[in-house]
Amino acid sequence: MKKVNIGVLGYGNIGSAVAALINRNGKTIAEKSGIELKVVKIADPKTSRKHPLLTKKSEEVINDPSIEVVVEAIGGTKPALQYILQALKNGKHVVTSNKEVVALHADQILKTASENNVSVFFEAAVGGGIPILQPLRESLYANNIYQVYGIVNGTTNYILSSMTNDKMSFSEALLRAKEKGYAEANPKNDVEGYDAAYKAVILTLMAFGVLVDFSEVYFEGITKITKEDISYAGEIGYVIKLLAVAKQKDGEVEVHVHPVMVSKDHPLASVGGPMNAIYVVGDAVGELMFYGQGAGGDPTASAIINDIIAAAHGTPSQRRAHSKMRVKDISKTKSRYYVRMTVPDKPGVLAQISKVFGEEGVSIQTVLQKESHGKSAPLVIIFHEVVEENFNRALSKIKKLAVVEKVDNVIRVGL
Amino acid sequence: MKKVNIGVLGYGNIGSAVAALINRNGKTIAEKSGIELKVVKIADPKTSRKHPLLTKKSEEVINDPSIEVVVEAIGGTKPALQYILQALKNGKHVVTSNKEVVALHADQILKTASENNVSVFFEAAVGGGIPILQPLRESLYANNIYQVYGIVNGTTNYILSSMTNDKMSFSEALLRAKEKGYAEANPKNDVEGYDAAYKAVILTLMAFGVLVDFSEVYFEGITKITKEDISYAGEIGYVIKLLAVAKQKDGEVEVHVHPVMVSKDHPLASVGGPMNAIYVVGDAVGELMFYGQGAGGDPTASAIINDIIAAAHGTPSQRRAHSKMRVKDISKTKSRYYVRMTVPDKPGVLAQISKVFGEEGVSIQTVLQKESHGKSAPLVIIFHEVVEENFNRALSKIKKLAVVEKVDNVIRVGL
Repeated sequence: MKKVNIGVLGYGNIGSAVAALINRNGKTIAEKSGIELKVVKIADPKTSRKHPLLTKKSEEVINDPSIEVVVEAIGGTKPALQYILQALKNGKHVVTSNKEVVALHADQILKTASENNVSVFFEAAVGGGIPILQPLRESLYANNIYQVYGIVNGTTNYILSSMTNDKMSFSEALLRAKEKGYAEANPKNDVEGYDAAYKAVILTLMAFGVLVDFSEVYFEGITKITKEDISYAGEIGYVIKLLAVAKQKDGEVEVHVHPVMVSKDHPLASVGGPMNAIYVVGDAVGELMFYGQGAGGDPTASAIINDIIAAAHGTPSQRRAHSKMRVKDISKTKSRYYVRMTVPDKPGVLAQISKVFGEEGVSIQTVLQKESHGKSAPLVIIFHEVVEENFNRALSKIKKLAVVEKVDNVIRVGL
Repeated sequence: MKKVNIGVLGYGNIGSAVAALINRNGKTIAEKSGIELKVVKIADPKTSRKHPLLTKKSEEVINDPSIEVVVEAIGGTKPALQYILQALKNGKHVVTSNKEVVALHADQILKTASENNVSVFFEAAVGGGIPILQPLRESLYANNIYQVYGIVNGTTNYILSSMTNDKMSFSEALLRAKEKGYAEANPKNDVEGYDAAYKAVILTLMAFGVLVDFSEVYFEGITKITKEDISYAGEIGYVIKLLAVAKQKDGEVEVHVHPVMVSKDHPLASVGGPMNAIYVVGDAVGELMFYGQGAGGDPTASAIINDIIAAAHGTPSQRRAHSKMRVKDISKTKSRYYVRMTVPDKPGVLAQISKVFGEEGVSIQTVLQKESHGKSAPLVIIFHEVVEENFNRALSKIKKLAVVEKVDNVIRVGL
């Protein structure tokens, strides 16, 4: 049986899970794949964990001639990018779970792999254990793919699920997510949408073969979502989810990340807790959805080990993007919108507001007028689909109306 | 660029969709796969469709030395099995969408492929366009898989969805399914569960590497499901789905197909219309779900073309089963149950019934006592998990009680 030596960079949650899973399921892996995996060196300069193969020097992994596949589980771009490139130049296949380095440097990494006749895989960078990049690469040859979108961040989905099911505030739900290990001490990367935006860039590459610049990707997180928004969404049959969206149409590509109100009947609405789910829409196959655990040591290690086997089987990497495209500005995209505002509790207010929207060509679908809190009352309006810049122009006029005390929140409505 | 000649057996909905999709998306296929596909001969002795490459003689496809991959889209076992085996013996890869021939003859087919150093693929036989067999084969090397289950028949899911959403009877919903092209003129294969049971056998092979005999697979269809059952299920938070289930535990394997009440919160509950969705549970990755169109010309052709590319890329077939196992008898499996019965509308009835179940160790979870229709009233009971033979023993005692006019239906409750 073929034996493959593996070096691991980074011995945190993921690196340690990879070593442990190879240890635990090595026999299964060998039976299924015909390949015996052996971790021969692990480098981490900072970890307090113990392992007999652990060294502080990453070079000992990158330059070890006995190592055929390097697993990069450090995260971030420095020094991960340099290590990945050096390992590839040393003729080693690289498998990484690092969404940031792939989103920012995919082309350089794929080019270096190709120049050195080795492969690089990053299934674990999107959707944790879910096989999504491999199907995009190897299961949809007969399809032109026009859309890929879904729930790609488990932390925010856990928080939104807690807010929905247990009527928690954002900060209460964040606290619980930290206690359960679903959110990091500094949750910015997740709750502000960076993580999902990195994944959107990778999905764009894999689904369309298109390279986009991360700096052009519009993203917002979930920090502005309130209990009230969740509750009103529920009243009209929606739940709020943070979605990463990539579309291509007429030679243009859209890539954006933001909260979306999803109909309760839509399969994404029942993706709860830390689970992820990604839709892929192809012209022959129609809609596909891939669902599973988007994070966690074992699921991520499952994806990494699969990539190691793919590399050892000689599977070629994802090809480099066939084109680099500008991302369509978010202001030019279309959406439906939910707006929650605070208005005086007196007659004639809705008439004034709807007149302004009407003048701007923004049409109202549903209105929820709620009971007053003293002299003010919440007013919730759902709008039909409109180009974002037109909607924003109308909204800025609304904000100037004397009868509008405050526009509390704006959330896109879709699916 | 590598060119691959294809022969197609059967020019019905599927065969014609394959030829049309290669024609329509040939350029995309070539760009993505590096392979140019060319249909060079199509055989169908009966079709009234026209195609310039059409012949009536299947031998002209099977024996054509220029053909590298044969697509079998005839269906059934005769003459499909013989054609598949002969094509393999002639050194051709075979791709089939035929669930019946694979479920009944997988081992012989895989053995013949292996002996002739060619591959056989059958992604389209389960879940239509959904990549499910390829992920089971190539995306879960690090996992021991213990369960695979889901909605694998689009016809019955369409009928059950119509009954649920539009309050139709089974026969009304079947009629609509026929009108929409989701059910065949003779719907027996779908509505009585044969189709789902074939798929359950294939999933068992792919997920566990275990061969089972189709004749040992317990299956029932949806013909006994009534509007009333759907409505009562809804009252207690469930929808009824036809599930194919395969489990392995402690050296035993369960494979069965039957209606199941699924909690409305479960992602399978929102799989509506003709869609399919399959869960896979692995020890490292946890729960995965694969969702998409389970039938239809284009989705099925998408899966078939992918298999053609896999064969042309030299991907090895699924390995033969590592063991042949007896299927655990359905009477030894455990489930929760819903029972709907008709009882006299008078005091003391429930007490008598619950006493008998209690004596047999079958415990009640929920009771719905409904308004009477004249002198009789429906009584609905949900039971906690119990071994099926114990439940059936209790049920047969119940049927003999004077206070039980009729046991109208029994449905498993799960998920």
